[in-house]
Amino acid sequence: MAVPDVPALAEGVLAGERRAVARAITLVESRRADHRQAAQELLVQLLPHAGAARRVGISGVPGVGKSTFIDSLGVDLTAAGSKVAVLAVDPSSARSGGSILGDKTRMARLAVDPAAFIRPAPTAGTLGGVAQATRESMVVVEAAGYDVVLVETVGVGQSEVAVAEMVDTFLFLTLARTGDQLQGIKRGILEIADVIAVNKADGPGEVDARRAARELAGALRMLRGEPVPVLTCAGLSGAGLAEVWAQVVAHQDRLRASGQLAERRRAQQVRWTWQLVRDGLEHQLREHPAVRSAAPELEAAVLAGELTPALAARQLLDAFGTAPA
Amino acid sequence: MAVPDVPALAEGVLAGERRAVARAITLVESRRADHRQAAQELLVQLLPHAGAARRVGISGVPGVGKSTFIDSLGVDLTAAGSKVAVLAVDPSSARSGGSILGDKTRMARLAVDPAAFIRPAPTAGTLGGVAQATRESMVVVEAAGYDVVLVETVGVGQSEVAVAEMVDTFLFLTLARTGDQLQGIKRGILEIADVIAVNKADGPGEVDARRAARELAGALRMLRGEPVPVLTCAGLSGAGLAEVWAQVVAHQDRLRASGQLAERRRAQQVRWTWQLVRDGLEHQLREHPAVRSAAPELEAAVLAGELTPALAARQLLDAFGTAPA
Repeated sequence: MAVPDVPALAEGVLAGERRAVARAITLVESRRADHRQAAQELLVQLLPHAGAARRVGISGVPGVGKSTFIDSLGVDLTAAGSKVAVLAVDPSSARSGGSILGDKTRMARLAVDPAAFIRPAPTAGTLGGVAQATRESMVVVEAAGYDVVLVETVGVGQSEVAVAEMVDTFLFLTLARTGDQLQGIKRGILEIADVIAVNKADGPGEVDARRAARELAGALRMLRGEPVPVLTCAGLSGAGLAEVWAQVVAHQDRLRASGQLAERRRAQQVRWTWQLVRDGLEHQLREHPAVRSAAPELEAAVLAGELTPALAARQLLDAFGTAPA
Repeated sequence: MAVPDVPALAEGVLAGERRAVARAITLVESRRADHRQAAQELLVQLLPHAGAARRVGISGVPGVGKSTFIDSLGVDLTAAGSKVAVLAVDPSSARSGGSILGDKTRMARLAVDPAAFIRPAPTAGTLGGVAQATRESMVVVEAAGYDVVLVETVGVGQSEVAVAEMVDTFLFLTLARTGDQLQGIKRGILEIADVIAVNKADGPGEVDARRAARELAGALRMLRGEPVPVLTCAGLSGAGLAEVWAQVVAHQDRLRASGQLAERRRAQQVRWTWQLVRDGLEHQLREHPAVRSAAPELEAAVLAGELTPALAARQLLDAFGTAPA
C-alpha cells in the first residue's frame, strides 16, 4: 500500500465513507514505519471528532454463539437508528492468519447492513500490537460517526484485559453449565464483566440457562461483593437481546451520572500512553544485541543458584546501557 | 549500620545463629548502595544452601485472625520438629512505619519459640522493593535451616500477587459471611488461592463457618472449574489447623510428584529477574529529568485530544534517549 494522502483520507473518514474508513484502518494496522507516521498524523486529525460512541467489549469462548449474538444485536441497534462498528482483538487470528470463512459469513445480516461496519481482527502482531491497532481503529470509526463500537474478543490469554482497557462496559457471554461447571468461564473474566448473559436460552435449553444465570448471579454476589446483572438471551431468535442491551446502557448511564465515564476514559488514555512507553522499552530491551547475547547465560546462572536475580538484572540493565555510570 | 563482614555473616547464617539471620535480613532490606552490594555477595554465598523449605503464602484481611492462626500453626509445626520462619509483605507497613504493637505481641507463643524466627515486613519502600526484600530474606532463612517459610500478607493492592510469585502454595483465610457476602474476599484472591480456610469456626460461629465453607467450595468449583480445598478452622483453639496444613502439604506433594514444583520455582526465578530489569528501567524512566519535564505536557496533550498516545509515547521514549536514532 502506498502512503495515502492523509488530509483526503481524514476528510473521507469524517464524511463516513466506508472505503475511507477501511483504508484508514488498514493504515493504522500497518507496522511499516512510513505507514505508522501517516497513521499518527491521521489520528491527530480524527481525535477531536472521536469519543461520542458507546464502547462495549464482548467476550466469550468459541461456541458460545458470539457472532450470532453480535449479528442479531447489531441489526436491532441499526434498526433503532444507530451506526454500529464491530472491531475485534484476537491474538489467535494473528497466529492462524484469520478465520477462513471470514466475518461476512459469521455475521451475515450485519455484513450487508449499510449502517454497520465490521472489521476482522488484525492478522499480524503481538497482543499489544493488535490491541493498539484496535484502539486506533476505534478512533477512526468514532470519527466516521459510528455511535456504537462493539469490540469482540475470543478471550485468549490477556486479550480480555486489553479490551477492558479500551471500552466503557464489558459484556461476557456464557452458556448454561453442564455438570458442575459453567462453560466458558475463564479465570479473571468475572472480575471485569459488567454484564453477563447466558446465551442459547431457547428451546429445551431455556430452563437450564435460567438456572445457570440464577446460580451465577448468586456466586458473583458472594465472590465480588456487588451485584452483577446476569441475564439470559438467545442470539439466534433475538430473545432477551433488548434486555441485555438495556443493562449495558444502564451501566454506562450510571458511570456517566457519577462522572466516572469521563474519568475512566481519561485514565485509560494515560495508562495506554505509558503502556506504549513500557512496551517500547521492553521491545528495545529484548532486541538489544548485548542483552540478547548476555541473557541466556545470566538466566542459566540464576537457575543454577550461582547468581542472584538482582545481580543478573543489574548486568542486563548494564548491557542495555541505560544504567547510571 | 556499618557494612558487615560478608563471609563471617554467611557463616553465622549457615550455622543458624539468630543474630546473624537478623543482621543478614537487615542487610538485604537496606537500600544503601554499599549495603546492596554486600547483600548480593552474601546471597550468592547462601543460595546453594537455600531452596529446601516449604514456601507458603498466607493472606486474609485484618480481623480474620491471621496472627493467631500463624501463632498456633507455627507452634504446632515446631512441636512436630520443624523450624519455622515467618516473613511478611505488607506495603501498608511501609506507609505506617510498621505495627505499633509489633509481631512479638501479635504472635506471643511463636515469638518466644526457639525454633521459630519472626520478621516483620520491611517498613520502607514500594511494593516491588518490599517484595524483593522478602524474597531475599527467604534465601537467608532457608540457608539458616528453616524448613517452613510462612509469608504473610494483608492483601493490600497487588501484594498477594507478589507473594504468590515467591511461594509454592497460597493459603487464604476468610470468615463466615454476614448477610450475602463472604467477608474478606478480594477480587483476584480466589484465582490464586490453593487452599482456603474459614477461620473462627468455633463456639456459636461454627455452624455459620461450615455453611460458608460449603457455599464457597461450590461457588469456586463453578467459577474456577476445579475443586479447591475449603476447610474450617479456629486459630485460637487450634481446631482444624492440622487439616489445613495437611491440605497445604498435599498441594505441594502433588506439585512435586508432577515435576511442577521445580518448574514453578525455576519460572519464578526467571520472571523475578526480568521483573527486576523492568522495575529498574521503569525507575530510570520515571527519574529521568527529560522524561519528568516532558510528561505533564504530553499527558495533557493526550487528554486534550491533541496528541495520540502513540506519538506521546514516542516523545517520552525519545526523551529517555534510548530510542534508535
